[in-house]
Amino acid sequence: MRQFIIVGHDAPTSPDFSLDDLTGGAGRLDVLCRCVTAAFLLSHGIRDEVRVHLVLQDEVTVTFEGEELRRLNPDERSTAALIRAALAARDEAIGAMAANPSPGVYLIRKGLRGVIDSLDAQSPLILLHEDAEALIETDPPANPAFVLSDHREFTADEADTIEDAADGRVRLGPKRLHADQAITVAHNYLDTDGFSRY
Amino acid sequence: MRQFIIVGHDAPTSPDFSLDDLTGGAGRLDVLCRCVTAAFLLSHGIRDEVRVHLVLQDEVTVTFEGEELRRLNPDERSTAALIRAALAARDEAIGAMAANPSPGVYLIRKGLRGVIDSLDAQSPLILLHEDAEALIETDPPANPAFVLSDHREFTADEADTIEDAADGRVRLGPKRLHADQAITVAHNYLDTDGFSRY
Repeated sequence: MRQFIIVGHDAPTSPDFSLDDLTGGAGRLDVLCRCVTAAFLLSHGIRDEVRVHLVLQDEVTVTFEGEELRRLNPDERSTAALIRAALAARDEAIGAMAANPSPGVYLIRKGLRGVIDSLDAQSPLILLHEDAEALIETDPPANPAFVLSDHREFTADEADTIEDAADGRVRLGPKRLHADQAITVAHNYLDTDGFSRY
Repeated sequence: MRQFIIVGHDAPTSPDFSLDDLTGGAGRLDVLCRCVTAAFLLSHGIRDEVRVHLVLQDEVTVTFEGEELRRLNPDERSTAALIRAALAARDEAIGAMAANPSPGVYLIRKGLRGVIDSLDAQSPLILLHEDAEALIETDPPANPAFVLSDHREFTADEADTIEDAADGRVRLGPKRLHADQAITVAHNYLDTDGFSRY
């Protein structure tokens, strides 16, 4: 299982946005949509063994379960529609109970700390950060939970929370990448482990 | 210079499509938009030394020049708007003369063979294909021109054209990736050349 926790700072927490305006009225939901598709989609199919947590303004989290997901398309708009449907079910999420408005899509009233606290012991938290050992130099864990930010930097509070909990940090290369690109590269490194020269 | 030639089979050749319907009325223009942004965008800025050719139904080609590009945003919709503006200038492209409706965006009446023929001798054509030596095992050329398909397979004619012209073929890993993911991974391999264990 590979998990990706994406901290969304400029993201909607209610379904009151238009699918025609993902980069405006919906904050920058386009960034998070690309992270979801980068995490799950292969050319022919879905990566089953993946879970994605979109932490929206530290208020609610939309979690996608690869094993249960149906009808995830690669375009931003259709992914945004899934997130909007999750936000529309927000009232069904009570306390620790998640709403589950469509297969494989859950909404829960948790912020970043709650998501991190819910990781099991077999899933080490790995910060994707440019000031770190190269992923290619490391021995990747079997069940990593990567945490990364959207297009904004982590806030000081978020950085503290992550520092306290992280089991490691890795960088993906010499260039600073967008969050979805980082997910694609991380997958490829893990995919090629034991495949080529590793 | 890194070049990416993406063969678009299910793409518009006229500007008569809605930006609200990129996965329907515009064929699958969303696929090509993601290829453009994967090729050019870093977290903070544009890769100058990149050129992208979108071959649209073997009729016309929209070429993006990294050194000249302005205002390329990461979302699909705004990239589609650039392509639509290029298609709207189609009548200005006459013979071998390209239209240049916005900075760094060109439309020319060329198909796949014409684009391949226009590559200079310093840009070896590299087919991205799963039945090939792993990129990670190869010594990457300085100025590769990668050719890849959208969400469809190459036609027999296209495959023949590419086989005749290709200087090599590489695969990116054990999983079949979407075209935009393949571009992201190819960039990362080239970026890390000489950077980590290469």
